[in-house]
Amino acid sequence: MVGNMLLETIEQANDIKKIDRKDWDVLAQEIRDFLIERISVTGGHLGSNLGAVELTMALHLALNLPEDKIIWDVGHQSYTHKILTGRRDGFESLRQYKGLSGFPKRKESECDVFDTGHSSTSISAGLGLVKARDIFGGKNTVISVIGDGSLTGGMAYEALNNASKLETNFIVILNDNNMSISENVGGMSKYLNNIRTATGYLDLKEDIYRALLGTKRGGSIIARIRRAKSSFKSLVIPGMFFEDMGITYLGPLDGHDIGAMVKVIGEARRVKGPVLVHVLTQKGRGYMPAERHPARFHGAEPFDIETGIPSHPRTVPNYTDIFSTVMCKLGQRDERIVAITAAMPDGTGLKRFHNMYPDRFFDVGIAEEHAVTFAAGLAAGGLKPIVAVYSSFLQRAYDQILHDVCLQNLPVVFAIDRAGLVGSDGETHQGIFDFTYLSGIPNMHICAPKNKWELSDMIKFAVSLNAPVAVRYPRGAAYDGLEEHRAPIELGRAEWIYREREIALFAVGSMVKTAQQVRESLKEKGYGVSLINARFVKPIDEEAVGDACENHTLIVTMEENVSCGGYGEKVLDYMSRSGRKNRYMNVSIPDAYVEHGNVELLKQEIGLDAETIVRKICEALEGGAV
Amino acid sequence: MVGNMLLETIEQANDIKKIDRKDWDVLAQEIRDFLIERISVTGGHLGSNLGAVELTMALHLALNLPEDKIIWDVGHQSYTHKILTGRRDGFESLRQYKGLSGFPKRKESECDVFDTGHSSTSISAGLGLVKARDIFGGKNTVISVIGDGSLTGGMAYEALNNASKLETNFIVILNDNNMSISENVGGMSKYLNNIRTATGYLDLKEDIYRALLGTKRGGSIIARIRRAKSSFKSLVIPGMFFEDMGITYLGPLDGHDIGAMVKVIGEARRVKGPVLVHVLTQKGRGYMPAERHPARFHGAEPFDIETGIPSHPRTVPNYTDIFSTVMCKLGQRDERIVAITAAMPDGTGLKRFHNMYPDRFFDVGIAEEHAVTFAAGLAAGGLKPIVAVYSSFLQRAYDQILHDVCLQNLPVVFAIDRAGLVGSDGETHQGIFDFTYLSGIPNMHICAPKNKWELSDMIKFAVSLNAPVAVRYPRGAAYDGLEEHRAPIELGRAEWIYREREIALFAVGSMVKTAQQVRESLKEKGYGVSLINARFVKPIDEEAVGDACENHTLIVTMEENVSCGGYGEKVLDYMSRSGRKNRYMNVSIPDAYVEHGNVELLKQEIGLDAETIVRKICEALEGGAV
Repeated sequence: MVGNMLLETIEQANDIKKIDRKDWDVLAQEIRDFLIERISVTGGHLGSNLGAVELTMALHLALNLPEDKIIWDVGHQSYTHKILTGRRDGFESLRQYKGLSGFPKRKESECDVFDTGHSSTSISAGLGLVKARDIFGGKNTVISVIGDGSLTGGMAYEALNNASKLETNFIVILNDNNMSISENVGGMSKYLNNIRTATGYLDLKEDIYRALLGTKRGGSIIARIRRAKSSFKSLVIPGMFFEDMGITYLGPLDGHDIGAMVKVIGEARRVKGPVLVHVLTQKGRGYMPAERHPARFHGAEPFDIETGIPSHPRTVPNYTDIFSTVMCKLGQRDERIVAITAAMPDGTGLKRFHNMYPDRFFDVGIAEEHAVTFAAGLAAGGLKPIVAVYSSFLQRAYDQILHDVCLQNLPVVFAIDRAGLVGSDGETHQGIFDFTYLSGIPNMHICAPKNKWELSDMIKFAVSLNAPVAVRYPRGAAYDGLEEHRAPIELGRAEWIYREREIALFAVGSMVKTAQQVRESLKEKGYGVSLINARFVKPIDEEAVGDACENHTLIVTMEENVSCGGYGEKVLDYMSRSGRKNRYMNVSIPDAYVEHGNVELLKQEIGLDAETIVRKICEALEGGAV
Repeated sequence: MVGNMLLETIEQANDIKKIDRKDWDVLAQEIRDFLIERISVTGGHLGSNLGAVELTMALHLALNLPEDKIIWDVGHQSYTHKILTGRRDGFESLRQYKGLSGFPKRKESECDVFDTGHSSTSISAGLGLVKARDIFGGKNTVISVIGDGSLTGGMAYEALNNASKLETNFIVILNDNNMSISENVGGMSKYLNNIRTATGYLDLKEDIYRALLGTKRGGSIIARIRRAKSSFKSLVIPGMFFEDMGITYLGPLDGHDIGAMVKVIGEARRVKGPVLVHVLTQKGRGYMPAERHPARFHGAEPFDIETGIPSHPRTVPNYTDIFSTVMCKLGQRDERIVAITAAMPDGTGLKRFHNMYPDRFFDVGIAEEHAVTFAAGLAAGGLKPIVAVYSSFLQRAYDQILHDVCLQNLPVVFAIDRAGLVGSDGETHQGIFDFTYLSGIPNMHICAPKNKWELSDMIKFAVSLNAPVAVRYPRGAAYDGLEEHRAPIELGRAEWIYREREIALFAVGSMVKTAQQVRESLKEKGYGVSLINARFVKPIDEEAVGDACENHTLIVTMEENVSCGGYGEKVLDYMSRSGRKNRYMNVSIPDAYVEHGNVELLKQEIGLDAETIVRKICEALEGGAV
């Protein structure tokens, strides 16, 4: 590995322009080495960043930041952008508590103009910045950089549909690596592939022209073709899909040829109207393990550079593994079981189901809205669909859950992974709102398992209920305590784990483990403490709450969700309705976004750790407040 | 007007097949007369239904219901379908309490296979039914009927992207009337227009072929064109946009020629793969006022058939009018004010703003997701965007509000119309969830005006706050009482209207009017009653609640929203946190979908009317419960 001679000369935005043209590729290599070295230590999104090194350099060479604006779709490919805008040192603490974010953040740099994290937002945001520029009379360039995976998300198409009306400059760079997080799906992907391999087409166009020129009326026909409307542009260029929408298409272009990209970006800036620059890149470029296993190196844990093997291999199964196993069993037991993912067969654990039951597995691409209504259609057709999805991504399909699934009371099961705090991905990925947005929806049922056995039981229960059910479980190692507590799941029934007097802890899902620690501490201090595993957030077990109110001074609810619309408010509402006057304490996530970092540290910060909870309970009981 | 001789012979599905081919057009006329006559009395969606008479007849002639499945996108064009499936008599009570729904309802008929109401869901749902059919080994036909307006919604594109992978039959009928609710926008619309006027194109294609055939190598070039991949299909057919996605395109076709459509639907059923049948229809067809004013007759109030003039012209302004006026004023005062609508310039009252400030008005089409993130981009660019939208449609953009607007704390104002019960449109359109889904989002502010002056004040306040704000107001006449209560809007401050002792009524928005009635009744019974206009749902006025707790036995909250995550739960949460032991009563919408019907009747049914509230309060105070 060479040193970082060139990279070290880049201290802030536009410093890259001092690099001699002949050294561009050397700098690209230094950036790549830097990324591999740092991400191997901290973890992070490797593949997408290695693929976008040259593209990012070309943008920084062609543009003038921060006057010009780059919006990174999803944003996990913005590492090189961060390196080139004075944040190289931050990579020591990438995605760590109080450290550099793995996504663009306006708080970090004026070169980050729009925060991203979820897919397919960049063209909409870019259009907004363009219109604002025009209204203020600005002249700067606005560029949205979007991957072909993100282009399967419907809002990207909504935005393209609107971009077509522009009579002012706006550039969309399609960073086409022929991948979502996993393999790409659908008609758009097929179409882009056709362009990738369209050299034969260009030859044919030439042949047509030459042949026509040899005929008497050929010249006038060609003139008519040139004058023709967008419907005919396909005769002239390969990107007619975009041209048909009114968007000038430039490409396809080698996304690792910096000079070529600088040139085309320059051309694109001179077009008065929307331009799409189609750039072909390779995910994981320059690091063999990432080129070979793009899904594994999409979001990587720390790894050994030599071998690509994770530095700290998992020794215990996580909740995703448990879900994966139960799905395979269920698939065998009931042929009506079908599984849906939005571009996350690996992340959600559905890959094994896919291998075993390929005809009953559907990867719809990054398209959560479609995923949910498609599932509603499958259910209306008599099947039992399970939508496996991350909590924060399911936010995209709120209306579809409300309007297409629950209104018709269709038996769709939502297996909601990454619920609660997710750690290093931060604000955009925390799954801390699902109890709220799902609870308000009529006919919805919501449950959360305390440990790995209960996840398995709950998925089976959910499939048997014949109604909409959400089962939500956290990222990371599956809790394997409390094995002996495995009473059958009953709708709306909580589980008493310890029954004493004085303090009743009602804990939801992951918080049952924390509640055990809280209980131990409180018992050491001499308190009697009951522990109830809530199991259901909707409907709550009113009988258990009423029962607890009979002989406990203080009722405490604990959940990894914002307080508004969460489990605790339902318990309090019931206590109020039934005239209970017990003291009540709500332990939940405060009304604020939670940044990235180690989950344990984050829990301490927001008061969801055992120590803080114990302290607050003691204060309340001693002080008499609450 | 002729009689309904033919129509009266149609008592159930498939009866239409007994009608002689030569009488098809007569039947179409009878249906049209029937629709005009009935909708002129009950109100309803006129234009879209008049446009789809022949298309619906063709579908019923070509298919075998209920084995074959039709999914109506949005569903407001399904009246003829209802007439042809035994629900003709139901039109007496169309959209009325306990009467026939204006949308497809599985509860009503086995010929309604999927409930719709919001836009752009039909292809996703249809794909689900197709996959279910295949897994169960069925052979029936599944057809999704989608308008060109709905095609601007991103999830329709997500679904098309997925449909392209099908190796089994699925038909999408594009009912292209060149309209959304208002004029259509964007690249897709332009593209469809090109097809509509593509006869010149077909001539050119012929000329090219003829010229090539005259050359030495022309024959082989044409053969190569014919063999070529989808990229070249544009040389052969007009629907290349869809062909490029892997979808067979048939059309364009006269959507008022029943025979032609029956034939093409038959052809489409034989294609092994996804087919798009492009049908050209005229909104409002056959009724001159609706042809001339399609937006006005989209959702019509009862009208005089002769003139098209509403039977009961509005005499008082509604909240939309008030919003319309304040927007025009604000637009003049601050050039940074911009307005966004998703295909509803009329419905949201932005038409006047559009006329006055065309450069600062954006109709993005039916694309709520894009609308919100676009607004976030505008705000990030220094503007002050106001998104005017119906409450139930904003559900589509939940993630965009959370992830793009509020996470960055961008100053986007949401003017949420049709919030609370909307009446005749029913379940899919009730705006009864917005407090819930918006309250859970950090940085969001939510307020609701008690009367028309307060709406004006709140919009001005919202624009001045420099943070995300939602102002929500109901459908219908703007309340003009309590004019004398117009204290300036202060963030998170409620307004004391009457200050007494014993019972404190905290009412939100539209419920302030109801609370006045409740107060009068209670005072007649001898109770002391304070009335507080909540104004803010987030943040709530904790001081006012605390103040009320000092000298009131019973605290009552009243809101037109589901209880979960609503205003009441926040008040109760505060009371609990501050150790208040006052009695508390939550008046809100129960956890269930609310059907269509007169709003006053609906309120009685769900206990949101003054009489029921008074009764409950008296019972509580006398019985000592609560």
